[in-house]
Amino acid sequence: MAEQLTKRADDYAKWYNDLVLKADLAEHSEVRGCMVIKPHGYAIWEKMQSALDGMFKATGHVNAYFPIFIPKSYFAKEASHVEGFAKECAVVTHYRLKSDPVHGVVVDPEAKLEEELIVRPTSETIIWNTYKGWIKSYRDLPLLINQWANVVRWEMRTRLFLRTTEFLWQEGHTAHATRQEAIEETERMLEVYRVFAEEWLAIPVIKGLKTESERFAGAVDTYCIEALMQDGKALQAGTSHFLGQNFAKAFDVLYTNKENKQEHVWATSWGVTTRLIGALIMTHSDDHGLVLPPKLAPVQVAVIPISKNAEQLEALRAYVAPMIASLMSKGITVKFDDDDSKKPGWKFAEYEFKGYPVRIAIGPRDMENGTVEVARRDTLEKQVMQVTDIAEKVEHLLGHIQDNLYQKALAMRENNTRAVNSYAEFKEEIEKGGFLLAHWDGTPETEAKVKVETKATIRCIPLGSAPETGTCMVSGNPSKQRVIFARAY
Amino acid sequence: MAEQLTKRADDYAKWYNDLVLKADLAEHSEVRGCMVIKPHGYAIWEKMQSALDGMFKATGHVNAYFPIFIPKSYFAKEASHVEGFAKECAVVTHYRLKSDPVHGVVVDPEAKLEEELIVRPTSETIIWNTYKGWIKSYRDLPLLINQWANVVRWEMRTRLFLRTTEFLWQEGHTAHATRQEAIEETERMLEVYRVFAEEWLAIPVIKGLKTESERFAGAVDTYCIEALMQDGKALQAGTSHFLGQNFAKAFDVLYTNKENKQEHVWATSWGVTTRLIGALIMTHSDDHGLVLPPKLAPVQVAVIPISKNAEQLEALRAYVAPMIASLMSKGITVKFDDDDSKKPGWKFAEYEFKGYPVRIAIGPRDMENGTVEVARRDTLEKQVMQVTDIAEKVEHLLGHIQDNLYQKALAMRENNTRAVNSYAEFKEEIEKGGFLLAHWDGTPETEAKVKVETKATIRCIPLGSAPETGTCMVSGNPSKQRVIFARAY
Repeated sequence: MAEQLTKRADDYAKWYNDLVLKADLAEHSEVRGCMVIKPHGYAIWEKMQSALDGMFKATGHVNAYFPIFIPKSYFAKEASHVEGFAKECAVVTHYRLKSDPVHGVVVDPEAKLEEELIVRPTSETIIWNTYKGWIKSYRDLPLLINQWANVVRWEMRTRLFLRTTEFLWQEGHTAHATRQEAIEETERMLEVYRVFAEEWLAIPVIKGLKTESERFAGAVDTYCIEALMQDGKALQAGTSHFLGQNFAKAFDVLYTNKENKQEHVWATSWGVTTRLIGALIMTHSDDHGLVLPPKLAPVQVAVIPISKNAEQLEALRAYVAPMIASLMSKGITVKFDDDDSKKPGWKFAEYEFKGYPVRIAIGPRDMENGTVEVARRDTLEKQVMQVTDIAEKVEHLLGHIQDNLYQKALAMRENNTRAVNSYAEFKEEIEKGGFLLAHWDGTPETEAKVKVETKATIRCIPLGSAPETGTCMVSGNPSKQRVIFARAY
Repeated sequence: MAEQLTKRADDYAKWYNDLVLKADLAEHSEVRGCMVIKPHGYAIWEKMQSALDGMFKATGHVNAYFPIFIPKSYFAKEASHVEGFAKECAVVTHYRLKSDPVHGVVVDPEAKLEEELIVRPTSETIIWNTYKGWIKSYRDLPLLINQWANVVRWEMRTRLFLRTTEFLWQEGHTAHATRQEAIEETERMLEVYRVFAEEWLAIPVIKGLKTESERFAGAVDTYCIEALMQDGKALQAGTSHFLGQNFAKAFDVLYTNKENKQEHVWATSWGVTTRLIGALIMTHSDDHGLVLPPKLAPVQVAVIPISKNAEQLEALRAYVAPMIASLMSKGITVKFDDDDSKKPGWKFAEYEFKGYPVRIAIGPRDMENGTVEVARRDTLEKQVMQVTDIAEKVEHLLGHIQDNLYQKALAMRENNTRAVNSYAEFKEEIEKGGFLLAHWDGTPETEAKVKVETKATIRCIPLGSAPETGTCMVSGNPSKQRVIFARAY
């Protein structure tokens, strides 16, 4: 398998696409821009969902479900929102097909909807239209709701996981009594995303604010986490929006405060998508195939017996049974592959290519010696280990792999993050990829000029960085802090 | 709350609708036929998903995700399938909106799709079109895949959970080398549904086969589980379809068998939906509100301190802390409600109405006596218990409640299942509701006549019942076994 994989150095984009297809993660469907997420890819998404869902619940959120269809008129209620999403909407206009003697199955012209329905590209409008009925008083606040759902944004150029017409995501939508509470929620969920990215995906991220031109359509402020891929391009890994009172005003959502006065409600929304699977692949995988952080690997350990005959296989089964039980009792997921229609070499290649973090091989000699051979996917190192306390050793190794992947990705990012002080230097450096820290005058004009001339965008205005005044590399006007530029996915 | 609830005896349909709304389970959205599933309702669905997903995985299935859109032409490939679903399809015809100076936001006529897309009402067609690329040889079989998704069937008359235009479900789609294997899979998943219905939902069900007129569009055989609601109407709670080679032929899915010959693949599909939440409500709930089986209750135990002042409340907190820790260590979900802005009476009413299986109240006198007051929702009985070993007692009680709900529902069904031997008797008995066991000549004509004249349909031809020859109650023609008639949701 790995032999058929394009090398990253040869063609990174092709390597990515090859890998997604050959590792059975996803494929293009015949429906334009929509992907099929195959079982191995979906299993990673399920792990992500489970971890995130636990973090959302631990921060007081509950799940709910809102309709997939949004009446066209809802969109028009928030001006910048419709502006941002109108160009990429799937529109339902009819509700029936019929048989036609000449053309076969056709749309029944008599079943035309009075008002067209939009397949949700995001749910602020329908949710705020619903919240209107739920929020009367300060006692109803805060409302902390998340939804796991599919959404559709009509994309002209698509890439598996990274940009697809339909994708899966979660979208949190919260309502608060005060501006301050809403901002705190926006920042709290950004921090949840940072922790998830760093501790689960093993991807270091930078927290920051989007500039006006990159802001979510309808938001007052868009916060984001930005990651750097192995090819030096940036990827936005999650966003958390402070929506101010924009949607409350558009949908007339008022509450009675403790002083018995009516006020508009304050809002946030925040989401991450199946795009994170793309981020995971592009951060850790290599020319040998997929590399997965143990915390998100569908199966963490593959155990492969190496036998010459049925009798040996039976003996090996008995030999490994207590080890497997012991691994499982620690919550480690194990696949014991004793399918003797496939050769060990084939299995080694398969599990390596599909990113199983640890592979344990056991042959007759291991039985004699009380050993097993343990291979780790991240470094491809093999080691013979005594079987005594093997579950503890593997548990430790999995933790070590998780940490190693993060450290490696962090080093990569640090090696590719640099300050530049002139536009000439910027133009030269941007060709090498990476995050460039540069002074910017804060205007959309300068941002647009840089984008047109270099294809780089401002990924974010980083949070918590030390203030450093300077002059904009393009206009020479004053700047209060460096921002992060990069070419991005 | 309960005071405002319509009594079942007065108007069962209104009781149901009231309850769904007032217990905060779901509500109608402004989008025709689509519901909003509120957090309390969605939490029940999450419990169902978790249990079912575990059962699917334990039987060797994996999850995947297929596109929400299906090209119109796919539908036409399986003749009876398009016939069955064409009348209720949401059709996407355009992919863009635009601003119009006169009419505001309008559909952009230039963004018309060449081929219309159908929002999936079920996914056989797109999945079999995909399987075509996945299945080459007998080594690729069986393919055991499930999908959790939303689907849309344009319904003219909707009821919350029971019949909605958009609903949530799981759909299993499996591919097999032989007819026999596919039939075994169909029956295996029907049995999974039976176990889930009886052991989790606490709803007794009858396994059976649908008649031709009630069969899934495209199936060779539709198996089902049928339940009886408190009002004497039947509810189909899950279906498992043996699809034969119909979809493999429609989408040209062939595999090479061990003899190196090409054969069409055999298929099954099976699903349950958010309708099960409706079944749950209509089976167990009462005039006091929601009743939930402990295994599916979002929270199993509400703990309510009763205090006169802050000092007492602090003492009660300390008193119940070990009890709560002990309950949670047993995997029992607990809500400790020490919100002193609400009165205990309000909380009692709230938790009773929302179906918390067990409520524990503790006052200052309990502290002195080393007791707590335990109330069970199913019987509304209260009991003072010594706090010693309280977690074991509550665990036992939850098991007992689960069992009691099942036994009660079973007794209700048995009391309302009866054999009838003439059409005159049938017409009289059907007015009383319940399952009627009657002889039927096996023709769609007789079935249609009974439906028109009595509104009753054949719910199923029960599996495993003792053969009993007789004569059809309508036509007098020979019959091989009794079938189950009922009026149904």
